[in-house]
Amino acid sequence: MTSPERAASALDLGLLAPGRAGSRVEAETGDGAYLQSLLDAEAALARAQATAGVVPRRAAEAITSAALANDFDLRQIALDARAGGNPVIPLVAALREALPEEVAASVHRGATSQDIIDTATMLVADRARIVILGDLDRVASALADLAERHRGTPMAGRTLTQHAVPTTFGLKAAGWRSLALDAHDRLAALSFPAQLGGAAGTLAALVPSEDPAAVFPLIESFAAETGLDVPALPWHVLRTPIAELGGALALAAGALGKFAADVLVLGRTEIAEISQRNGGAGGSSAMPHKANPVNATLIAAAARQTPALAGVLYASMVAEDERPAGAWHAEWETLRQMLRQVGTAAELAAELAEGLDARPARLAENLAASGGLIVSEGLAGALEPLLGRAGARKVLTAASKAAGAEGSSLTETLIDEPEIRALVDADRLSPDELADLLDPARYLGAAPDLVDRALRRVPRKTK
Amino acid sequence: MTSPERAASALDLGLLAPGRAGSRVEAETGDGAYLQSLLDAEAALARAQATAGVVPRRAAEAITSAALANDFDLRQIALDARAGGNPVIPLVAALREALPEEVAASVHRGATSQDIIDTATMLVADRARIVILGDLDRVASALADLAERHRGTPMAGRTLTQHAVPTTFGLKAAGWRSLALDAHDRLAALSFPAQLGGAAGTLAALVPSEDPAAVFPLIESFAAETGLDVPALPWHVLRTPIAELGGALALAAGALGKFAADVLVLGRTEIAEISQRNGGAGGSSAMPHKANPVNATLIAAAARQTPALAGVLYASMVAEDERPAGAWHAEWETLRQMLRQVGTAAELAAELAEGLDARPARLAENLAASGGLIVSEGLAGALEPLLGRAGARKVLTAASKAAGAEGSSLTETLIDEPEIRALVDADRLSPDELADLLDPARYLGAAPDLVDRALRRVPRKTK
Amino acid sequence: MTSPERAASALDLGLLAPGRAGSRVEAETGDGAYLQSLLDAEAALARAQATAGVVPRRAAEAITSAALANDFDLRQIALDARAGGNPVIPLVAALREALPEEVAASVHRGATSQDIIDTATMLVADRARIVILGDLDRVASALADLAERHRGTPMAGRTLTQHAVPTTFGLKAAGWRSLALDAHDRLAALSFPAQLGGAAGTLAALVPSEDPAAVFPLIESFAAETGLDVPALPWHVLRTPIAELGGALALAAGALGKFAADVLVLGRTEIAEISQRNGGAGGSSAMPHKANPVNATLIAAAARQTPALAGVLYASMVAEDERPAGAWHAEWETLRQMLRQVGTAAELAAELAEGLDARPARLAENLAASGGLIVSEGLAGALEPLLGRAGARKVLTAASKAAGAEGSSLTETLIDEPEIRALVDADRLSPDELADLLDPARYLGAAPDLVDRALRRVPRKTK
Amino acid sequence: MTSPERAASALDLGLLAPGRAGSRVEAETGDGAYLQSLLDAEAALARAQATAGVVPRRAAEAITSAALANDFDLRQIALDARAGGNPVIPLVAALREALPEEVAASVHRGATSQDIIDTATMLVADRARIVILGDLDRVASALADLAERHRGTPMAGRTLTQHAVPTTFGLKAAGWRSLALDAHDRLAALSFPAQLGGAAGTLAALVPSEDPAAVFPLIESFAAETGLDVPALPWHVLRTPIAELGGALALAAGALGKFAADVLVLGRTEIAEISQRNGGAGGSSAMPHKANPVNATLIAAAARQTPALAGVLYASMVAEDERPAGAWHAEWETLRQMLRQVGTAAELAAELAEGLDARPARLAENLAASGGLIVSEGLAGALEPLLGRAGARKVLTAASKAAGAEGSSLTETLIDEPEIRALVDADRLSPDELADLLDPARYLGAAPDLVDRALRRVPRKTK
Repeated sequence: MTSPERAASALDLGLLAPGRAGSRVEAETGDGAYLQSLLDAEAALARAQATAGVVPRRAAEAITSAALANDFDLRQIALDARAGGNPVIPLVAALREALPEEVAASVHRGATSQDIIDTATMLVADRARIVILGDLDRVASALADLAERHRGTPMAGRTLTQHAVPTTFGLKAAGWRSLALDAHDRLAALSFPAQLGGAAGTLAALVPSEDPAAVFPLIESFAAETGLDVPALPWHVLRTPIAELGGALALAAGALGKFAADVLVLGRTEIAEISQRNGGAGGSSAMPHKANPVNATLIAAAARQTPALAGVLYASMVAEDERPAGAWHAEWETLRQMLRQVGTAAELAAELAEGLDARPARLAENLAASGGLIVSEGLAGALEPLLGRAGARKVLTAASKAAGAEGSSLTETLIDEPEIRALVDADRLSPDELADLLDPARYLGAAPDLVDRALRRVPRKTK
Repeated sequence: MTSPERAASALDLGLLAPGRAGSRVEAETGDGAYLQSLLDAEAALARAQATAGVVPRRAAEAITSAALANDFDLRQIALDARAGGNPVIPLVAALREALPEEVAASVHRGATSQDIIDTATMLVADRARIVILGDLDRVASALADLAERHRGTPMAGRTLTQHAVPTTFGLKAAGWRSLALDAHDRLAALSFPAQLGGAAGTLAALVPSEDPAAVFPLIESFAAETGLDVPALPWHVLRTPIAELGGALALAAGALGKFAADVLVLGRTEIAEISQRNGGAGGSSAMPHKANPVNATLIAAAARQTPALAGVLYASMVAEDERPAGAWHAEWETLRQMLRQVGTAAELAAELAEGLDARPARLAENLAASGGLIVSEGLAGALEPLLGRAGARKVLTAASKAAGAEGSSLTETLIDEPEIRALVDADRLSPDELADLLDPARYLGAAPDLVDRALRRVPRKTK
Repeated sequence: MTSPERAASALDLGLLAPGRAGSRVEAETGDGAYLQSLLDAEAALARAQATAGVVPRRAAEAITSAALANDFDLRQIALDARAGGNPVIPLVAALREALPEEVAASVHRGATSQDIIDTATMLVADRARIVILGDLDRVASALADLAERHRGTPMAGRTLTQHAVPTTFGLKAAGWRSLALDAHDRLAALSFPAQLGGAAGTLAALVPSEDPAAVFPLIESFAAETGLDVPALPWHVLRTPIAELGGALALAAGALGKFAADVLVLGRTEIAEISQRNGGAGGSSAMPHKANPVNATLIAAAARQTPALAGVLYASMVAEDERPAGAWHAEWETLRQMLRQVGTAAELAAELAEGLDARPARLAENLAASGGLIVSEGLAGALEPLLGRAGARKVLTAASKAAGAEGSSLTETLIDEPEIRALVDADRLSPDELADLLDPARYLGAAPDLVDRALRRVPRKTK
Repeated sequence: MTSPERAASALDLGLLAPGRAGSRVEAETGDGAYLQSLLDAEAALARAQATAGVVPRRAAEAITSAALANDFDLRQIALDARAGGNPVIPLVAALREALPEEVAASVHRGATSQDIIDTATMLVADRARIVILGDLDRVASALADLAERHRGTPMAGRTLTQHAVPTTFGLKAAGWRSLALDAHDRLAALSFPAQLGGAAGTLAALVPSEDPAAVFPLIESFAAETGLDVPALPWHVLRTPIAELGGALALAAGALGKFAADVLVLGRTEIAEISQRNGGAGGSSAMPHKANPVNATLIAAAARQTPALAGVLYASMVAEDERPAGAWHAEWETLRQMLRQVGTAAELAAELAEGLDARPARLAENLAASGGLIVSEGLAGALEPLLGRAGARKVLTAASKAAGAEGSSLTETLIDEPEIRALVDADRLSPDELADLLDPARYLGAAPDLVDRALRRVPRKTK
């Protein structure tokens, strides 16, 4: 490690990013990984040009051999990037310096800095995506198990923070999985094109003036050497690939954020409907008893930051001229931060999902806590044919009020309502039927069937 | 018009939204259109339930007949929405009141407010999308003409605000078109699902408890009645359709924003490379001579607002429980505003594109303004085999400096450089060859070929 | 109402904005209010110019008399605004038309559209601010009562969703009030300057060329006529007043959003620690028992949208030239929407705060639910001198585990731990002392004192 | 450097942040600086507790001596932060381990992680602020010189990208300075409070239960030891200090972004009205002639990112409970990134401002380019008394059209208009007067006077 690196080494070691520190996505998106990708892009260009006969094959090989990030002084390149506003200028100088003069001339031939930076960004993003897709797969798979296991496990459905009607834990898990798959499939469908356009997107210095159509095989060959997609046009100022990636990452953050939000609610001290084997037992230095939902918290934090960053990327589409003064530069750290946030969130979510379970006893306890109120919709529906719409509502409201006032349950008060008593007396409603109507587990609607349908979905193959 | 409406009629007539006022997308997204869509959703539900045999066919017909927005007091519904926090509660009450009692019981049967609002939102969004897609088609088509006509018209390529190397006006136009098509195709690929889940997404009140799987034909029938897509699951808290729509709209705003940004640059008084027959002659009350680029300005304004709104929608994916307390409500005005901004921008862009042209004489003038500097990259490449890399750069730097100092052009000073003179004297470079090298029109790279390739792309069919 | 108004009247009557519909801030920020403010600005200019002797006093009076929004066709002005991209151009034309020719010449003399729009915006914003400040005062006042009443009412303090240590309901209320006052004082401290700069901010057409310093009394007189602050410079492209207003509104939304977030948590079915007399009983069409926290939900929705809009306003500071092509236009609807969101949230919060109360019995029940775990920090501190740091932690962990396993409370298990029994036997700890240590109400720290201190703060006077 | 640090050292050395790499603000905001501030907070707490007699003075001294960031394994702490979701838990463990057992017990006594992290954040932010304020001072000072020097230097005022009326370069510079001072004064007025609240903000473990009011001197003493402001209340979930800091930083980014935007326009190849001695000559690897406006570009990039980040901080005010699960964590990297973006932008802007100058010859050339059209407002005003409002406008429109058609100037065509000729013939207008009216330098309005007034403003003292 050179001395300027040492001096800067404490810039970001993950102190402000618990969860990210030590993660796979962190390793894939560090400055070291970017530097290697920049060099990979230069080497791929030389090889493609060798194939086109523009650069000697030996030069391309020498450039490829020299393109090792560890051989370069990363911090010095970062410092030198200030003069020109981008790191490729000093990197090309350093790479040329590291090579014999006759080879040096074949470095970065006809290219512009943006060709290299955009290509490297796609390489980094694609590798980070693979990590993220893998973790989303783990999330989906763990949640599929959970959904299947609990397809019919009743629990309180909640709307606007209040008990509404029963649902099943399996349907909740199936919903989380559905979102994870939405995120997965969106990321899997993205295109990651190589970038090659030269100074202003015309490839003028990359192509013999007498045969401009020769750029097409060159672009294809460059894309093949990098492993990236073939671009339709140079996209220096056609930023769809970056904006779409940003959108897909924001979708992923939102998908995982919904999962985390529910885990945070269900794990509240008073609700306590879930157990979290992983990432749910963060200690506290002060309170020995605390078991904090750390993973869900950190996922939630990521989901609060990512949407705004996606906005920055969408706004950077407004890139004037053939290269904009600012919009492009605003993408760099923004996109990396998004990859890191989503990558971290996905890894934490995978861990969380794999250790998550419902606590059926507690689910049942909470479901019963409203003393039957949670099935009032069903009751109303069942009583309507017997008492009319208004009559049914009146009796339920009266019984609910009585239950509230006496601290008793709807089950207890309902039977005391004269209209109900009359129905029972008239044999139009039996106490057993009434008990069934008051049983939340019998008012699950299509929840288990919806779980079955949802679980038939499989993740999309990566493009 | 009722009196409360009259009182509120000056809330938003478009005074702060020039361009939107009177546009087609405005009409498709007004409160009136929303109210009609809410009623359409209720009517579709009744018809679907009639098909399922849950509701009398006559009742469904009566509901359908009564579902006319003009018959309801929109403002009063808006005022009454405060109590429950959404407009469906008072709307259902008003609709029931407008119907005979036996029909009233079949209104909104088993549904929840969110079923109706989300379905209506999709209906409105889908209709607005059709308008937007039409305008994006117009943009793409006008720009295709422009690109074709100017595939080889040379102009200055600019990077970081400075002349870089030549490009063609056709390639610029082809790039704008490419973005318009990206936006088009993204919007065209979206799914707009109907929403049907009941109180907590289990459809409990919509389905006979003994046959829960009956929900699937019901959902399909409901979707068919609305003309929307069949949802995989109730998506009360699986907000992918909204988030993806937000992302697609942000992409469209960015795409059009890039077009506008370039128009604003190219139309600057000092640059003046384009003529704008439409939307480029906004007057000024004070300055008789002013011709303001109004359309481009208003498009640029939309592109500055939309990305942040997309962020709000992505953030609203983090929707706790079976219906969130806030995240859902935050979508309503946000999404409408995005539809309006993009719809307005697309209409303005279509008009702008259809009246836009290059001013070739001025393009040539600006291209020549740097006295040959704009081809310095090409010159360096051509001189390198003759003078070596360092030698070529040295002579060009010297000639550029001389040109700057004397206010003369590179064409003039280059020939005076001893190294060049020596090449000419040695017959290794003829004055004609030098003149060719200094001609920007001969350094267009693959620009015209890229235009041809780009124009082969056709818009995607709407899903 | 003219016909184009009628056609557009259903654009926005508040259907998507429950809570806003019918609110005072809605009335202050409607297109009607904006139109009147535009006219007020024109009239104030004429009067200021009359004072300066540039315009006949009679003309100024005639303009003032004619400046009545109701006499103009708002929708037509909105439609005509498209050509020039702003509503002042058609408004000035309409105003001139409504006046005798000799007076017409004195309308809008030397001004630019932005002078009028910015001044009108400040007028609208200032009036909306008064409404907001009033509601924030109500919030603060109601919360002061609540804080005082419950300064010592114990409740569970919660961190990362888990019970941490006890706090008091009064301290929570004092914290909410403190934020409301932060928002209040920030808004109260803002400056709302009039705008007067002419075509490019030099006031060239407003000032006799021989006496340019005459602009200063003119600007002061204009500000006085409008009731706004005197600007230091024309601020066409120095957008601090707008950006600061945006920041203050985002602060207010955040402040109220925190209040709402806590209300939503505390009102959850399982927690149920508060009663909401107002805005907490939103009904449901399907579920007779539901009482939704409507006000808190709508406040939360506002707090999710406002921050992104503030970002748009900060970004609009980047306003190129003497008037930007887009950045300025992006402010118009954004700022109005923020005023409306915050105004609505403040009104809802005032109502909510005035009807809010704690349910002490339920607070106590929840506090006891962890069986003493909630005072583990205090226990650890008290046992440390007796057992050493490690010893204290060991015994607490053991007792907590036992409590968890047996479903009993810490109070019960602790006394069974051998180390504790030994202390009791050795008379180093009495059972009474232990009971005290396990009583949450005795571990409130400085909560009541903090309430007292917080309540000494008074709102800042409006500037 | 330990081995895990080495492994992580390439995470962020500034490769994606040209301009930031090597800047002073980078050094003040690195993980190293944060770690030191965390330790400073722990040491200050121990000293304050020593003063309060709660902790032995010697222990406080030992803790202070041990609180050196370089003695800790930063990367390991970052990795260990995952378990509890924050770095203070492992840091406290490491600090205790580094001390004798009797001293260890006095570390972090009664505090919560958030006390330490928030206090450290304020320390870092305050130090970064000092750097930023210094650079804003430099910006303001350099721009004051520029404004004074060019108070009367005429140039084209531009609105909506088009020439409007003349202004002066001095007024532009005075406007930029005014914004820099707005940003300066806003940052200078901020409060940076220490944080001390204990587990749930009641300071229960920090205060003897018999004397809770003892917390107030303890808090004051803690604040004094850190050098920070005394908080009114613990602000764990009252995030005004963070939100206000975010707003102030967004304001600063906007202020500098406006400066950069103008520099980018004025430096365009076709406009070329300024010279940039610093940061305006970024080279290009491909094009020898390019001189890129690097500083302005990087400032513009910062201004595109900061507003969205401010939105994240405003949104984090919505922090439920006594510590939120996500909102707080979302602040950490967001705020650091904002400090870095603004710190970098301010340093680049200082450098830019100090090397910036106008090119008066070019200003004059552009001013003349419209052939007099730029003074059409003034002409109209002067001709109105002679020809009537309609007459004046008619003759100007005719002359402008003629000028456009013939490629000649308004100066030439105006004299040929019959109405003007008649005025000259009638001695109501002399050719000299006409020439004066057509001289842009005589139509500067109050620009120079506005500069004088603006320059009387002085920066506010830091609070």
